Amino acid sequence: MTQRYFLYLSYDGTDFLGWQTQPEGRTVQGELEQRLSTLLRRPISIAGAGRTDTGVHAGQMVCHLDLKTPEEDPEELVYRLRRFLPPDIAVSETLRVRDDAHARFDAVSRLYGYHVRTSPSPFTRKYCTLVPESTDFEAMNRASSHLLGTHDFTTFSKKHSQVRTHLCTVSEARWEREGEGDRYVFHIRANRFLRNMVRATVGTLLEVGSGKISSEDFRDKLLSRDRSQCGTTAPSEGLFLEEVTYPEELFMAKSH
Amino acid sequence: MTQRYFLYLSYDGTDFLGWQTQPEGRTVQGELEQRLSTLLRRPISIAGAGRTDTGVHAGQMVCHLDLKTPEEDPEELVYRLRRFLPPDIAVSETLRVRDDAHARFDAVSRLYGYHVRTSPSPFTRKYCTLVPESTDFEAMNRASSHLLGTHDFTTFSKKHSQVRTHLCTVSEARWEREGEGDRYVFHIRANRFLRNMVRATVGTLLEVGSGKISSEDFRDKLLSRDRSQCGTTAPSEGLFLEEVTYPEELFMAKSH
Repeated sequence: MTQRYFLYLSYDGTDFLGWQTQPEGRTVQGELEQRLSTLLRRPISIAGAGRTDTGVHAGQMVCHLDLKTPEEDPEELVYRLRRFLPPDIAVSETLRVRDDAHARFDAVSRLYGYHVRTSPSPFTRKYCTLVPESTDFEAMNRASSHLLGTHDFTTFSKKHSQVRTHLCTVSEARWEREGEGDRYVFHIRANRFLRNMVRATVGTLLEVGSGKISSEDFRDKLLSRDRSQCGTTAPSEGLFLEEVTYPEELFMAKSH
Repeated sequence: MTQRYFLYLSYDGTDFLGWQTQPEGRTVQGELEQRLSTLLRRPISIAGAGRTDTGVHAGQMVCHLDLKTPEEDPEELVYRLRRFLPPDIAVSETLRVRDDAHARFDAVSRLYGYHVRTSPSPFTRKYCTLVPESTDFEAMNRASSHLLGTHDFTTFSKKHSQVRTHLCTVSEARWEREGEGDRYVFHIRANRFLRNMVRATVGTLLEVGSGKISSEDFRDKLLSRDRSQCGTTAPSEGLFLEEVTYPEELFMAKSH
């Protein structure tokens, strides 16, 4: 018999070619599947909640996998994974879910954070993007408010034949100052994200922040559904997948 | 004519063999002297406030250097250095000081921070040391209080023939929780530090935190002035030089 589990983890994306297993190169999914297969002595495939790009981090990523019960104990697996995974991946816990639960298709929202600071720091250079001191965060917040609601995000997406619709429903889109210093984070929560969407959106918002375009220009670009209206894509190091949420009824009571 | 300046900087020590220039290998002083010499087109030597070891970070380091006036403008130099230095060094400012001021000999106190956390995180693994969840920070604080005042720190030093005395006056020594999470920092401020002193002190405090020794044992080790009583040296990645302070009268009013 097998039982399905959600595995919660975080990773520093700096040295990964993103989440998804590739024929060549180091990926988070690839590392996890390889280490899990070694630990459990059988081929393991996992399915992640999303596909972060090269260099993008995850403060929280969720994937699902099936364990043979009772011999494969999920808590013991977390304990062993902690000792066995490379230091740029950390697993936090497993939660038992319904056997038909899917980490990607059942997610109801994802929260991304884009982290910037206005003065250089050697300690956050891999986790923050440097922006000019003169960046107008209030203007970027006025522009961000146009993102709320359901919109066609063609302007802020990569050409991607696999999706049938570019409609995304954004429930949160705001720049906030972190602490007393020079750090700010843009939080955006939506039911789904298209490829490149957060970095394209942030890159265009930063044009509002520099005064190159107005917040009305930003709204017009969004409504144009025209990829050529998109600003420069913001660099990957500032981007974190921060939270994935699921319906309560997906989670099972602990089996022991 | 030359004028002396203090240059304030920070660095990520991960990829340096410490502060001080070595015949071989990458050091912070070496990088700075080389880049300054290139920018100013003459050989530049700098003197730092202290010598951090391999892998130790600095949130604030101070060094002094002499600039030819008026042709070598300090603010322009900072501006050019920011573009020219590697990303693991960041300069913040220069301050004009008396021509006989010395970044090392005139420092009245230095503050070090030793950062730990009790659960692994891929984002702070180069800036925090992982300690067991069961670490007793209250017990470590009882032990730390024995460090306050003037003591002979032979127990917590490396054999080092160049110093005439092992007496150090400690004015601050305390573990504090950072924020709401699992991060703690040990702050220790003293008029001077011996080689290896913070890491040796923290390593022995962690033995109090694990229950291996009592806070009275810790005090007895300090008073023994016996290097063999010292615990395991704590790893370098958690250690930051955080502040160097000088007498007010060292600093000159701006010359323009």
